[in-house]
Amino acid sequence: MVNSNPVITLITDFGLKDEYVGAVKGVILTTAPNARIVDITHLIPPQNVQAASHLLARASGYFPPGTVHLAIVDPGVGTSRSILAIAADSQYFIGPDNGIFTPIYGSAASLAVHRVTAADLFLATVGATFHGRDIMAPVAARLASGLAIDKVGPRIAVQDCVHSPHGAITRRGNMLQGEIVHVDNFGNLCSNISRREAENFAGSMTIAVRITDNIVIPLCHSYGDRARGDLLALYDSHDYLEIAVNQGSAARRLNLTVGARILLSLCLPVTPACQS
Amino acid sequence: MVNSNPVITLITDFGLKDEYVGAVKGVILTTAPNARIVDITHLIPPQNVQAASHLLARASGYFPPGTVHLAIVDPGVGTSRSILAIAADSQYFIGPDNGIFTPIYGSAASLAVHRVTAADLFLATVGATFHGRDIMAPVAARLASGLAIDKVGPRIAVQDCVHSPHGAITRRGNMLQGEIVHVDNFGNLCSNISRREAENFAGSMTIAVRITDNIVIPLCHSYGDRARGDLLALYDSHDYLEIAVNQGSAARRLNLTVGARILLSLCLPVTPACQS
Amino acid sequence: MVNSNPVITLITDFGLKDEYVGAVKGVILTTAPNARIVDITHLIPPQNVQAASHLLARASGYFPPGTVHLAIVDPGVGTSRSILAIAADSQYFIGPDNGIFTPIYGSAASLAVHRVTAADLFLATVGATFHGRDIMAPVAARLASGLAIDKVGPRIAVQDCVHSPHGAITRRGNMLQGEIVHVDNFGNLCSNISRREAENFAGSMTIAVRITDNIVIPLCHSYGDRARGDLLALYDSHDYLEIAVNQGSAARRLNLTVGARILLSLCLPVTPACQS
Repeated sequence: MVNSNPVITLITDFGLKDEYVGAVKGVILTTAPNARIVDITHLIPPQNVQAASHLLARASGYFPPGTVHLAIVDPGVGTSRSILAIAADSQYFIGPDNGIFTPIYGSAASLAVHRVTAADLFLATVGATFHGRDIMAPVAARLASGLAIDKVGPRIAVQDCVHSPHGAITRRGNMLQGEIVHVDNFGNLCSNISRREAENFAGSMTIAVRITDNIVIPLCHSYGDRARGDLLALYDSHDYLEIAVNQGSAARRLNLTVGARILLSLCLPVTPACQS
Repeated sequence: MVNSNPVITLITDFGLKDEYVGAVKGVILTTAPNARIVDITHLIPPQNVQAASHLLARASGYFPPGTVHLAIVDPGVGTSRSILAIAADSQYFIGPDNGIFTPIYGSAASLAVHRVTAADLFLATVGATFHGRDIMAPVAARLASGLAIDKVGPRIAVQDCVHSPHGAITRRGNMLQGEIVHVDNFGNLCSNISRREAENFAGSMTIAVRITDNIVIPLCHSYGDRARGDLLALYDSHDYLEIAVNQGSAARRLNLTVGARILLSLCLPVTPACQS
Repeated sequence: MVNSNPVITLITDFGLKDEYVGAVKGVILTTAPNARIVDITHLIPPQNVQAASHLLARASGYFPPGTVHLAIVDPGVGTSRSILAIAADSQYFIGPDNGIFTPIYGSAASLAVHRVTAADLFLATVGATFHGRDIMAPVAARLASGLAIDKVGPRIAVQDCVHSPHGAITRRGNMLQGEIVHVDNFGNLCSNISRREAENFAGSMTIAVRITDNIVIPLCHSYGDRARGDLLALYDSHDYLEIAVNQGSAARRLNLTVGARILLSLCLPVTPACQS
């Protein structure tokens, strides 16, 4: 697929104060001068593969066909870990084989995973500390410019790739337990419980969202359904349950962060206001 | 107006650590693959409509005709607040109807305000929490690609829009009182008093800038007119009065922030050094 | 040289919360609508010319020929300091004459330095506080669009430019002493000792990296050569000695920052594990 304006996204743990992001973009534009480079984020906590994995899965669906997603959170750089190039439905993904692509494997209808080995595509000098710049960036630029993915290296089986564990959703008696997997810029607490799972669990009953036995949070449709400063739960912009404070921070209010549990219980449709 | 390289700017309170900015850009590039997307800032304090309004008004004049400015600070998302698309002189503005465009209304020579209602322009699924991505981004991309603004929804009167109050400038006896409306990255204290207002007030007299009766700050031409570490006042790069410390932070020195008052008094051209 | 997709990079101390970066980009795109603008960083500590100089030298080599690098760390804005436009090998550099380009002068094979004086290239109104926007941005856009560099102003001798001192490497008895010149996002301590200098010093001996007489750090090939949490030294992605902690922060572990000394001593190839 040759694209006159290929999009390449970046998600990294490089931060914004060094020259690392700029160097990666310079390498990309040297090979693919027409590329549109989009930052998803560079503020992944250092070496936090799971956080990058989560945000990449949330963002990728909003990009056009042919987009190449470059995911560089790479604590194993310079060791024997592989670098992968993946064709998943109509998009590409490049990054280390450390579990960062686990959600992509689970959601793609068509999937081809390749190990990146074609050294003629790399920068002339490849060091041991920055494969994002020396290997992944030039390969991403070539894929974006129309190179067939089987030219980057041999296809491998997805079950031979590293898979990262994700917080499981469990049934505990008459409750459903999930966990907080991300806290966003507004202090919203994003859980791993999707609307579909919650609604399957609820059937014809009404859901109560609980943090502890004593804190029951009403399920609403939008932030504005509750007064400014009030706690609420809603399905977020990816249709997962989120706990929020209208025009405030739920993370600060409840003093919770990633890893905290969230519980759904069932009740007759009476208790708290604003059931969506 | 069809533009081969339309510019779309973004000003939001999304922060830089989530996938929100990336998702908005993906939606834009899906519809307008040639768009040049420019970040003004994503570090508006959450829900601070007035801060966004202030920076947008300062930045927009430096962009070319045809630019679409997307301003997403939207505490009322999911409620009945409208979304606006505005043609102001040669540029476009899109965002919630919450006062964020008040300075634009005041400064544009030609102005047409439309309520965004054409749901066929939106993403196929529109949630209750992220209209920046689901509604504003695709509409911005369509305007940037040449869609006529009357296709986004009905024109409304500007007086029917929400207007936000701005800090007023008042005459207090023989003094002019304004306020600090922004503190920048260098700790410069930016006021709402323009050079024109100050000079009208001064006539043939000399201005003294005061924070309290005891702190009188010399009005200079450039930072370097005073020694390193010294306080000064000058007209900033938008011709508004600013209080600064040469190579230092006036905010830290004076322990002042947004909302602090600034006073101009008049004197014979003697007192402090470096009157511009 | 006319380029259909010229690249312009930005390195500044503007931070990301004001409209300054956006205004500079607006000015560039008004003159050069096809420019690809790449942020190297905007988080240079305010007025820290040497930090900007260091990162610019590390990044510039990864950009394509014809790239224009705009370096705006300008504590002398509005004073009599000059603005420079430099052709160095196949790239351009624009910024204040305050030492920010010292490493470029030292490394370029071909070099022409011009003082920027052609006021017809500037914005119509030039203030005293923001020459990055009013002078440097439009000149950068014109150079990127193919303007010959001798049109921006007279050529001057490089020895007449301001040169900034850089931390020297000194021989102390049988040790080589350098210093930490940058701490990156991961807490890696980047020194000014290149692989070439270290290897010349070592000859056939083995290097031991020391912070104090008591802390000796093994020289390794990659982070993964040591256990998670262990200290190591290696040549970084620019082939300079760096002190790191595998999946941790050396800056925090050793409580060191920019300016700290680093010592190399020689030993027989026995002591610590993993010599590269």
